[in-house]
Amino acid sequence: MENLLNEIVQEVISRVKKEAFIEVESSGRHIHLSEEDVEKLFGKGYNLTKLRDLSQPGQYACKERVTISGPKGSIKNVIVLGPCREHTQVEISLTDGSILGIKASIKQSGDLNNTLGIEISTEHGSINLEKGLMVAKRHIHITPSDATKFDVVDNEIVQVKVFGQRPLIFDDVVVRVNKNFKTYMHIDYDEANACGCSKGTMAKIIKG
Amino acid sequence: MENLLNEIVQEVISRVKKEAFIEVESSGRHIHLSEEDVEKLFGKGYNLTKLRDLSQPGQYACKERVTISGPKGSIKNVIVLGPCREHTQVEISLTDGSILGIKASIKQSGDLNNTLGIEISTEHGSINLEKGLMVAKRHIHITPSDATKFDVVDNEIVQVKVFGQRPLIFDDVVVRVNKNFKTYMHIDYDEANACGCSKGTMAKIIKG
Repeated sequence: MENLLNEIVQEVISRVKKEAFIEVESSGRHIHLSEEDVEKLFGKGYNLTKLRDLSQPGQYACKERVTISGPKGSIKNVIVLGPCREHTQVEISLTDGSILGIKASIKQSGDLNNTLGIEISTEHGSINLEKGLMVAKRHIHITPSDATKFDVVDNEIVQVKVFGQRPLIFDDVVVRVNKNFKTYMHIDYDEANACGCSKGTMAKIIKG
Repeated sequence: MENLLNEIVQEVISRVKKEAFIEVESSGRHIHLSEEDVEKLFGKGYNLTKLRDLSQPGQYACKERVTISGPKGSIKNVIVLGPCREHTQVEISLTDGSILGIKASIKQSGDLNNTLGIEISTEHGSINLEKGLMVAKRHIHITPSDATKFDVVDNEIVQVKVFGQRPLIFDDVVVRVNKNFKTYMHIDYDEANACGCSKGTMAKIIKG
């Protein structure tokens, strides 16, 4: 009986959370590769190996790792995300940028205009990426029905209160609506540490 | 004539900024040492060497550096701040904690209750600090007159909007009023990176 009550309480909490809040995920540094760059880094005809699915449908972490190198330092074991994209894109934090010695632009994923490049290497080969290095602008992936529920539209800029260990309100968060998304807020490790975010941390959209 | 106008404009901007805003400084990892621990790490009768003054009157950066070591890794060249304190206190970021492999508590400076310890070493010697490792809680140092101006009191918790490259509002910021302070907001490097803070970034207290 007590177990049943506990389960009901947990279910109620879970539903209330989903009604009013959005789960926050923190993204570590990672790289999306074009098919051409996969071949340069891993060999002709090479296919990426899926390790596990990510929260966004169709996106997955691969077992492949690369090294990225800047004028001041290198970062090894940068995870490759699949599937391949049209253009290679490297997403780091500002802290990573300090390690590498590169002032990367804060950009919306996919927008490679005015981004810097970086050297990417594996044991097999290396490339000098001309552009595609960025600090990803914090964003919310949201389904059309959740967008209706939270009263937001695609590309809207909102404030978001994050209920982490040290709560804060992120300004300037871009909303991306797409039927292929699952609803999650994505921030980088600097932002996650700034708000004391851990697995299951929830956030609430505040309409300016 | 144009120079004069420019100077007047700059002076007006500077005064307006001071009236409504507080300058933000980001604190890197550092250590405050007790006199006893200075001797253990640098030798009997050793005195710290002042390198430069910090924004808070009487506080200064020293030329001395130490290494701190946790179960997962070490961080070299951690700067020592002076003057000596009654108890040794090591302030790191959550990112540093990941490097060291230690989950440090987020604490108000000076409150060593329930903090973990860490190994501190130099070429001369080493100590196993039993407690004193913390991630410093973000805070505002404020003079009594500025506290009146901004309508805050000692130990009040406020929200603070930071006008960095990626603006955000820090919740849960503690105000410290003291006539010996200069008015500055202090955040750590994770928080600085999360809001894109650089030298001269300003913040505004928002009363909840």
